[in-house]
Amino acid sequence: MDSLGDKILNGDRRALARAITLVESGRADHRAQASELLAHLAKAGRQSLRVGLSGTPGVGKSTFIESFGMMLIEQGLRVAVLAVDPSSTRSGGSILGDKTRMERLSREKNAFIRPSPSQSHLGGVARRTREAIALCEAAGFDVVLIETVGVGQSETVVSEMSDLFLLLLAPAGGDELQGVKRGIMEMADMILVNKADGDLKATATRTCADYAGALRLLRKRPQDPEGFPKAMTVSAVEKHGLDQAWDEMTTLSGWRRENGHWDGNRAAQARFWFDQEVRYALLSRLDTPTARAEMDRLGAAVGAGNLSPTAAADRMLSILATH
Amino acid sequence: MDSLGDKILNGDRRALARAITLVESGRADHRAQASELLAHLAKAGRQSLRVGLSGTPGVGKSTFIESFGMMLIEQGLRVAVLAVDPSSTRSGGSILGDKTRMERLSREKNAFIRPSPSQSHLGGVARRTREAIALCEAAGFDVVLIETVGVGQSETVVSEMSDLFLLLLAPAGGDELQGVKRGIMEMADMILVNKADGDLKATATRTCADYAGALRLLRKRPQDPEGFPKAMTVSAVEKHGLDQAWDEMTTLSGWRRENGHWDGNRAAQARFWFDQEVRYALLSRLDTPTARAEMDRLGAAVGAGNLSPTAAADRMLSILATH
Repeated sequence: MDSLGDKILNGDRRALARAITLVESGRADHRAQASELLAHLAKAGRQSLRVGLSGTPGVGKSTFIESFGMMLIEQGLRVAVLAVDPSSTRSGGSILGDKTRMERLSREKNAFIRPSPSQSHLGGVARRTREAIALCEAAGFDVVLIETVGVGQSETVVSEMSDLFLLLLAPAGGDELQGVKRGIMEMADMILVNKADGDLKATATRTCADYAGALRLLRKRPQDPEGFPKAMTVSAVEKHGLDQAWDEMTTLSGWRRENGHWDGNRAAQARFWFDQEVRYALLSRLDTPTARAEMDRLGAAVGAGNLSPTAAADRMLSILATH
Repeated sequence: MDSLGDKILNGDRRALARAITLVESGRADHRAQASELLAHLAKAGRQSLRVGLSGTPGVGKSTFIESFGMMLIEQGLRVAVLAVDPSSTRSGGSILGDKTRMERLSREKNAFIRPSPSQSHLGGVARRTREAIALCEAAGFDVVLIETVGVGQSETVVSEMSDLFLLLLAPAGGDELQGVKRGIMEMADMILVNKADGDLKATATRTCADYAGALRLLRKRPQDPEGFPKAMTVSAVEKHGLDQAWDEMTTLSGWRRENGHWDGNRAAQARFWFDQEVRYALLSRLDTPTARAEMDRLGAAVGAGNLSPTAAADRMLSILATH
């Protein structure tokens, strides 16, 4: 175990990949090993910049990550990319299923790309992703990008594990502005309007101005310096605006570190993670072959009308209490 | 206990109100009594028509329930109204807080109106509401209206406990059509466009036609006869269209009864309820003063960085295991 931990602390990507597979496992002995490994690695106290990134299909998210990630690597930084996609089982594969999506980045030795664990339950994906982030931090990555397609609650989940949250949008007509829900806007530290190139450049500039206006209507947040949250245009294809976006991100995170918001946010996130872990573990008692069989048996009796839902629940709890 | 149960079976509204207060209680002895009472009442095997009704503030929901409920009562039916409003604690009172919202209906001896239990957690409100429905059924109500303002997931929760799901909408310009999410449209068995009176009559008719068109684009559901889901105009103020709406509802529910969908749906809902009850009970172990104090203590250590979230969760689970 220590040997795997030490390899990770040395930045070994294959060891990191193995450790992520370990935290993704549902087996009890794997869970125990993972818990021990995480406790060991936590002692190193390493921190990455955790950047959440949400964008619906078609906004050019893969191209953005590829270009943005390459720029960071050219600056000498190490970059990990993790995906959160609760729908990956249903669609028959992860949104990051093949690394050809980010062909150049995936070949870089200072990059690490990991697809979303294939679980249908967002809570399970969230748990594994939080642990994968901790592993990437221990492996010395400077930036961990956590991407999501933004289905359902996944933006909330990603923002709850990020230091900064970016929203990547495509140029659009003015009336499509309302397509971004207010709750999502309020999560964003920066809105990046992609595809500010070629025929779409003027539209992107207008869209950016619209979002900048919308952001100004939101209440200023105590954790932000003047001018944030902010909207910018970028072109992932032409590699325009990526360095400016990175400058703004470092400005914002630096400001938050100095003002204590960074530590406060990390502490709140850790407490939340603890709370979720406890809940998840309590519910995991239903996730054994015996428990599933009993749930099926009692559920059938309920469905047939032979047992009330409440009475069946009481019986199930008695069964769990005696195991 | 039997005496309370017998009174409910005799249709005693005060006994019904007392029983609902009992199922809303979090006390362990009350839960045990509630469970026994529900098991006793279930033997009577009475069924109401459970009608879910969602509508945002301003569509005239209270007026609709008042007029629709009065019409049912004039036909000799008994009507119960329950509210599902997860936000009722925050807003400092239930959406049904005062019965003056439905002044006439609340005075009818064949009507029963109950506000939403004041709990912030939707899961808790859902549990109590399901049990309140079972109590109303035992008390012999023909129709149980379950209303919600449609915040967040509450429409889904209400549709999961209803036989029919109605969406009440206001007349609106064509481009507001998209304001109703596709997921909500897909839940609806009938869309009722209210306020089809006075100046708004023509707009209501156009809005209704727009929604009828939108409904036709949805996939036909196997549990529906030809022509459903359907959109209609009503005027709660002028009491227009209410009897036609009721006719359609009885047609639809009759068809579903004959074709087995009614029983299948009820069985699936009961199994779902059973599943939710078990999960809720497992998590309720965190809902004791001792557990809350331990969660606070460990959470503080996690927030201070002295303990990893995973390690803290392991400790919390050990503590729960020894209690």
